Amino acid sequence: MPHHKLSLCADHYPGWILKHTKRFIRKYGMFTPEERILVAISGGKDSLALWDVLLQLGYQADGLYIHLGIDGGLAYSDASEARARAFAARYPQTQLHVVNVAEAYGAGIPQVTERSGGHSRPCSLCGRIKRHEMNRIALEGGYTVLATGHNLDDEAALLFGNVLHWKTGYLLRQGPVLPATEGMARKVKPFCRFYERETAAYALLQGIDYVWEECPFAAGATTLTHKETLLRMEHAAPGTKLQFYLSFLHAKEEGFFRATEKAAPPLHACEHCGQPTTASDLCAFCRIWERLAEEKGKERELSSEG
Amino acid sequence: MPHHKLSLCADHYPGWILKHTKRFIRKYGMFTPEERILVAISGGKDSLALWDVLLQLGYQADGLYIHLGIDGGLAYSDASEARARAFAARYPQTQLHVVNVAEAYGAGIPQVTERSGGHSRPCSLCGRIKRHEMNRIALEGGYTVLATGHNLDDEAALLFGNVLHWKTGYLLRQGPVLPATEGMARKVKPFCRFYERETAAYALLQGIDYVWEECPFAAGATTLTHKETLLRMEHAAPGTKLQFYLSFLHAKEEGFFRATEKAAPPLHACEHCGQPTTASDLCAFCRIWERLAEEKGKERELSSEG
Repeated sequence: MPHHKLSLCADHYPGWILKHTKRFIRKYGMFTPEERILVAISGGKDSLALWDVLLQLGYQADGLYIHLGIDGGLAYSDASEARARAFAARYPQTQLHVVNVAEAYGAGIPQVTERSGGHSRPCSLCGRIKRHEMNRIALEGGYTVLATGHNLDDEAALLFGNVLHWKTGYLLRQGPVLPATEGMARKVKPFCRFYERETAAYALLQGIDYVWEECPFAAGATTLTHKETLLRMEHAAPGTKLQFYLSFLHAKEEGFFRATEKAAPPLHACEHCGQPTTASDLCAFCRIWERLAEEKGKERELSSEG
Repeated sequence: MPHHKLSLCADHYPGWILKHTKRFIRKYGMFTPEERILVAISGGKDSLALWDVLLQLGYQADGLYIHLGIDGGLAYSDASEARARAFAARYPQTQLHVVNVAEAYGAGIPQVTERSGGHSRPCSLCGRIKRHEMNRIALEGGYTVLATGHNLDDEAALLFGNVLHWKTGYLLRQGPVLPATEGMARKVKPFCRFYERETAAYALLQGIDYVWEECPFAAGATTLTHKETLLRMEHAAPGTKLQFYLSFLHAKEEGFFRATEKAAPPLHACEHCGQPTTASDLCAFCRIWERLAEEKGKERELSSEG
C-alpha cells in the first residue's frame, strides 16, 4: 500500500482492515454496538466484505439483497443473490432479507427502463429503486442504520462527478455519514477510506465468493469514466484519491459548505409511500410505478382496440 | 467552436470576441469606462489579446510588463519585453509600465530560486513577486482595476487543482472578479470564459506578435498536468471545462461557500511595504528579499573569513 508506506502479510492483513474499519466507525460516529445495522448487499466484494467485517467486529448486522431482475446473458441478479445467500449461510446468527423487485412491483430494471421510453437511464432508475427499498426495509425492520460498501474509489469518483458539475446538494450530503431525517434511516459508508484493491484483498483472503462481473448496464456509465481519469491521476501521484476525498471531508468539517435552499430544498412526505421527497406529490420511486401503470394501461387500450 | 455550435469567418471572429468580452465585463461588474485599468502583460497571446480588446472597446487600459530575469537559453524575459513594447507602440494613447525585478530588487527569479535553497519552487516565487508588483504599480499609478489575461483553460486548471486539494481559501477567491480590499486593487479576468484556442485565434487574426514558448520553468508544473487531464476530458465530452467553471460560478452565486476563518483569515498590513498579508509581520514578497539579504550577508561573512 504505497500511499500508507505499509506492507502486510496475509495473516495480518484482515486484522488491519478490521482495526481501521472500527476506527473509521468511531471517528465518524457511524453507529454503536447497541444499534441494529442493515447492510446493503449487492453480491460484490465490497458489500460482502463489509458485512463480514461488521460481523467479525461483533456488530448486529443483517443483510439486504435487492433482486433487480437483471440478466445480461449471465443471470446477473440470480448469480448475485446466490452469492449473498451462500455468504449469509456462514453466519447462522445473521439474517438476509431479500426483495425481488419484479415480484413485488411487477417489473425489473430492464422492463422499467424500456417502458420509460428513453427518459431515464437504467442506472438512475436502479439507484432510485434501491435507495427506496433499502430505506423501507430498514424502517420496517427497526434498523436505525443503513450501511453500504462504497469504497474510496467509489467515493472519489462520485465526488469527482459532483464537483465537475458542482452539484451542491450532492456535495452537501456526500460523506461517511448521512444523518437520519424524518422517515429516512442514517446512512453510513464504513469502507469509504479503503481503496478498492484493499477491500478486494480482504474478500479474497477471507475466501468470500463474490460476483466479479460489473453490472451489464454499467458499460459507458460516467462513474466508470471518472474512475479511469482518477486511476491515471493516482498512477502519476499515488494517494491522489485519498487526498482528494479527505481534504473534501476537512472542508466540510471546517463548515465551508452552506446548506442553501437550492442545495437543501425542503422535504415532504410522499403522498403514496410516506418517504421524504423534494417533490410536492409523489417521490421519484412511486412516480416510476405510476408511469409504468399508465404505460400498461395505454398498451391494454391499444390491444383491445386492435 | 463545437461547445457553442458556432462557426465564424475571419472577418467576423474579432467582433465576436469583442462583443462577448464586453458582455462578460458587464455581467460580472468588472469595471466601467470611467475606470483606469492596468493590464498585466506577459508578452504571451492572452495578455496582449486582452489589452488589444480593451483598447478596441474604448476602455482606458495601460499595460504593465514585469521583467523577471528569466533566460532559459532563449532570453525569455527579454524576448517577452520586446513583444510587449512592440505591441504598445501600436497604440500611441496607451502607456506601458516596465518593472525589472533584478534591477529593482537585486535578483531575478533564477537567483531568488537558487538562494531559497530548494525551499520554494520558481513558479511559487514568481507568483508572489508578480502579484505584489502588479498591485504596487496599480496603487501607485491610481489604477482601480488590475486585469489579467487568464483564459478558461487556465481557470479550469486552477479550479481543478484547488478542488483536488480542497483549498478553501483559493476556492473562495477564485472567480472573474476579486473585489478590492484595503491596500489591494480589484482583480478581474475578462477572458475567463474563452477557451485558449479562442484567444489564440484572436491574437493571430489581429496580427499580434507574441511569445509562443512556455516559460522555461513551467516544465513539470502541476497546472500543466491538470491541463492535460482536462484536455482528455474535453475531448471525450466537448464543453466539459466551460461547464465545470460555470457551474462553479453558479454555486458561488448561490452562496454555497462560506468564508470560514480558515478560508478567509484576517489580513494585516505588511510591516515593510504595507500591502495586506495574513502573516503578522512581513508579507510573502518582503520575506523573499529579507531572506535573500540574510543569505548574501552569510556569504559575505564566509568569503571575508576565507
